[in-house]
Amino acid sequence: MKASRFFIGTLKEAPADAEIVSHKLMVRAGMIRRVAGGIYNYLPVGLRSIRKVEAIVREEMNRAGAIELLMPSVQPAELWQESGRWVKYGPELLRFKDRKQSDFVLGPTHEEVVTDIARNQIKSYRQMPVNFYQVQTKFRDEIRPRFGVMRGREFIMKDAYSFDKDTEGLKETYRKMYDAYVRIFTRLGLEFRAVAADNGSIGGSGSHEFHVIADTGEDAIAYCPTSDYAANVEAADALPLVSQRAAPTEPLTKTATPGKAKCEQVAEYLNIPLERTIKSIVLATDNEGAEPTLWLLLLRGDHELNEIKTAKQPGLADFRFATEAEIVAWFGTPPGYLGPLNTKKPVKVIADSTVANMSDFVVGSNEVDYHTTGVNWGRDLPEPAVADIRNVVKGDPSPDGKGVLELCRGIEVGHVFQLGTRYSVAMNATYLDETGKPQPMVMGCYGIGVTRILGAAIEQNFDDKGIIWPEAIAPFEVVLCPMGYDRSDAVRERADKLHDELMAAGIDVILDDRGERPGVMFADWELIGVPHRLVIGERGLKDGKIEYQGRRDTEATLLPVAAAAQTVIDKIKAALAH
Amino acid sequence: MKASRFFIGTLKEAPADAEIVSHKLMVRAGMIRRVAGGIYNYLPVGLRSIRKVEAIVREEMNRAGAIELLMPSVQPAELWQESGRWVKYGPELLRFKDRKQSDFVLGPTHEEVVTDIARNQIKSYRQMPVNFYQVQTKFRDEIRPRFGVMRGREFIMKDAYSFDKDTEGLKETYRKMYDAYVRIFTRLGLEFRAVAADNGSIGGSGSHEFHVIADTGEDAIAYCPTSDYAANVEAADALPLVSQRAAPTEPLTKTATPGKAKCEQVAEYLNIPLERTIKSIVLATDNEGAEPTLWLLLLRGDHELNEIKTAKQPGLADFRFATEAEIVAWFGTPPGYLGPLNTKKPVKVIADSTVANMSDFVVGSNEVDYHTTGVNWGRDLPEPAVADIRNVVKGDPSPDGKGVLELCRGIEVGHVFQLGTRYSVAMNATYLDETGKPQPMVMGCYGIGVTRILGAAIEQNFDDKGIIWPEAIAPFEVVLCPMGYDRSDAVRERADKLHDELMAAGIDVILDDRGERPGVMFADWELIGVPHRLVIGERGLKDGKIEYQGRRDTEATLLPVAAAAQTVIDKIKAALAH
Repeated sequence: MKASRFFIGTLKEAPADAEIVSHKLMVRAGMIRRVAGGIYNYLPVGLRSIRKVEAIVREEMNRAGAIELLMPSVQPAELWQESGRWVKYGPELLRFKDRKQSDFVLGPTHEEVVTDIARNQIKSYRQMPVNFYQVQTKFRDEIRPRFGVMRGREFIMKDAYSFDKDTEGLKETYRKMYDAYVRIFTRLGLEFRAVAADNGSIGGSGSHEFHVIADTGEDAIAYCPTSDYAANVEAADALPLVSQRAAPTEPLTKTATPGKAKCEQVAEYLNIPLERTIKSIVLATDNEGAEPTLWLLLLRGDHELNEIKTAKQPGLADFRFATEAEIVAWFGTPPGYLGPLNTKKPVKVIADSTVANMSDFVVGSNEVDYHTTGVNWGRDLPEPAVADIRNVVKGDPSPDGKGVLELCRGIEVGHVFQLGTRYSVAMNATYLDETGKPQPMVMGCYGIGVTRILGAAIEQNFDDKGIIWPEAIAPFEVVLCPMGYDRSDAVRERADKLHDELMAAGIDVILDDRGERPGVMFADWELIGVPHRLVIGERGLKDGKIEYQGRRDTEATLLPVAAAAQTVIDKIKAALAH
Repeated sequence: MKASRFFIGTLKEAPADAEIVSHKLMVRAGMIRRVAGGIYNYLPVGLRSIRKVEAIVREEMNRAGAIELLMPSVQPAELWQESGRWVKYGPELLRFKDRKQSDFVLGPTHEEVVTDIARNQIKSYRQMPVNFYQVQTKFRDEIRPRFGVMRGREFIMKDAYSFDKDTEGLKETYRKMYDAYVRIFTRLGLEFRAVAADNGSIGGSGSHEFHVIADTGEDAIAYCPTSDYAANVEAADALPLVSQRAAPTEPLTKTATPGKAKCEQVAEYLNIPLERTIKSIVLATDNEGAEPTLWLLLLRGDHELNEIKTAKQPGLADFRFATEAEIVAWFGTPPGYLGPLNTKKPVKVIADSTVANMSDFVVGSNEVDYHTTGVNWGRDLPEPAVADIRNVVKGDPSPDGKGVLELCRGIEVGHVFQLGTRYSVAMNATYLDETGKPQPMVMGCYGIGVTRILGAAIEQNFDDKGIIWPEAIAPFEVVLCPMGYDRSDAVRERADKLHDELMAAGIDVILDDRGERPGVMFADWELIGVPHRLVIGERGLKDGKIEYQGRRDTEATLLPVAAAAQTVIDKIKAALAH
């Protein structure tokens, strides 16, 4: 490809709305252009990378036995009413009416449509397993689209939906998809981690997320460096940090802690470890026609509430945080000095599993400026309900017992999920089993955010000059920068020859024949992030040399002219050899 | 590919809503499934053909120097307001509001979005010509979606938009696109015709349509077999069939023609050629706050009105057909015996260019059951306004003077169009010319209906067994039908070997290992339309033979086992060698 026949749209400045580096660099590199909030044009440079991601995804999906089809963007409301999501799905679901006033949605996912296909096409257990996938444009009406392709409204996804006759079959299909995803992200050249979206062990889990590791990631991930345990912090099991409760040693003592409303302040003031203090969090659940139920959740002072795990506790599915008025009414005091002792009205107490094993601990006295020390379960308080309701922290024991947890941040780019029969039961997608009895199909779904991968790859691979693409998804693998393409026959002939040699070897090469100054040329390709560069100059050619620089290299190296093409070919092939 | 790893969804019956053969066959062959009116799932078999069309389109667009990008489906209303199409575009434009109550459209085309890209990216004449294209899903809210993929609401299009600095540049780009389209439809293996959408000569025309020739086509096409003239009948120039007006020879005579309201009846009753009669068509144009203007259009009895050309006449842009009440008020008689003589109120008369040169003709007398013969311009009537307002008919002289016209029917699958500065002026898309002066970019647009091509190809290529695909867009090029794949080692081994040989040669082969009976197997693949079939049976193998049958062949032929693969490879390569 010659640059004069292509479209390079680099910019000096990033747009004002770009908050994160991948958004800034994608705009500056001429990969995307904003059309409306969360809606982008994919310019030629950007589309090349998208197509490379898609190609790898397709190859691995096909290899794993999935079959490609294409479902529409515009979907009739009837299907969503059948599944129940017409009502349940929030305003991210873009609903509209066509000219005949029929209701439609712009598809954010395709469970309904694919289940409709399956119930019409699959009659017998003999036709399963089947796994349909598509690479398709989705729409989600995000309330706050931002971060470029990371949280867009219109975006490209690979979504797959599997149909099995039973849970065993689903587990087998799920494992194949899990393996395919590992291959996909490995081939893409990304540092990634598959993490359990619920209980953390691959075999038993119903759901895994695939995260590209990046400091700027929205998600916190807990992993064990000495085992294969990894889970989203949202879902990671937190083991009790005190294995057995010690006997009480201190008397119950009400102590003045003036102005010390936070656990950290109390610990410092009383000169005790933060691990002896207990944090009180008050939730409420509403009861129709009656006053709400208030819940007091107790966490160790250095721990944080995990709302996902909390919502899984009996009675707490629809919890909300209590209002200050409610807290005053139930505890007799505003937030700051709350605790389980002497509440004004009864509350339901849940102790985090670590808290449940603590003794001689400190809680608020339900009186401004007072805490109570030497508190003990059984002696001073009834035994509490116990649950895992906190986020894991660095240093926690790994739930698999094989080490301690580390934390990192990640960007979710893939998700595999065992749906089970949720959609097939709601939409009556049944097959006849070996005995001729109708059974609901057992489904899985498997998504990859194609356009999001570009943003994630950049968050993981950039420097102050621009993007640093992994070879597999670079818009071009190598750029040829001739010094004086128009002026020097020797330079032009050598550049053209290199171009043709690299093309013939199947390398994605671009020859910058635009006639820009070297500084502009280098800056453009560093910004765009082409991983390999060859500079062809008259002086070098006189010495039989061509200058090579990898995008991560701090300096150029000189290659003999005759070896230049092959050196680059070898480097690229090595990088792609996953 | 083995059929057991693929998804075959053939049906015995076509759906009730399928009116035309391509719609019926695409559903029966398991290529498409209806999701809502005009909205389809493309099942795996169908998607394979779509991808093949897309690949050829991309190759030829790239070869012609066009650059691929991807624009969004969801477009902000602001851009459409700028171009003026927010108001002008009819209800086919699906408009909706997002969750913030901002107006959007689901893109039926992308002139606005691409012009917005161009005005932001192109600053100088040095950056042009540039031609952006995409393969993208469009939505048009057709009032009566039908005919499967032929007139769908959601469909896949290749659309390209070129930007040149002047009209000369546009003409050059247009010619390149025209040539690329010829290559595309040639490579697709379709019988097609490029027809002028306006004046019929390639050099001077601002617009051409590419039609797949099929008896079931919606469009009538006029072409000259002895020259390269071809035009949509909507646009084809009709030359006067009488070159010079003869002097009157008959007296003006009012004649009883009881019950003979049609020209054909009058000609028969009076025993004169139909070519002597004149047909009266009454149009009306509305005048605000005043009574409408009535127009009498005169055509030779055997000719039909061309509404497109009529609307181009001065004053007739917004014409409608007159109501019966208006006709009675202006002519003093209901339709059937109308004519230009003695109207009750003044009407504007336009004579078709053939009529204008006629003499001694017959018109209605504006009195029920009476016609007037021997009518002559100048003598009995004032000289009329003259215009080309009729459809050409078979046998008309070709407008290029190089023969006579033939008619055929076509399905429009492509369109190239010289837009000029319509969008660039409205949206202020300017560049700086050689003298540093801002000038509007000169645009062209170029569409191909990717999904529609499948329907058109089938309308042109089918029989009572099913589809007959051209090799280039067949979902599979050859099917291997083993007789007893599960029972016979010899059959299975030979089938697998053929499969691997054909795959290695880059042939799209499917091996039917489903274990279906031969009749079912053959019927499925004939319905799906795979162009080549090899049948591997134990008996044949004993004789060293494999049975070959082309999809259009009436009988099978026996091939030596060793030659079977190569024979099929040669046939396919020959078919693809355009």
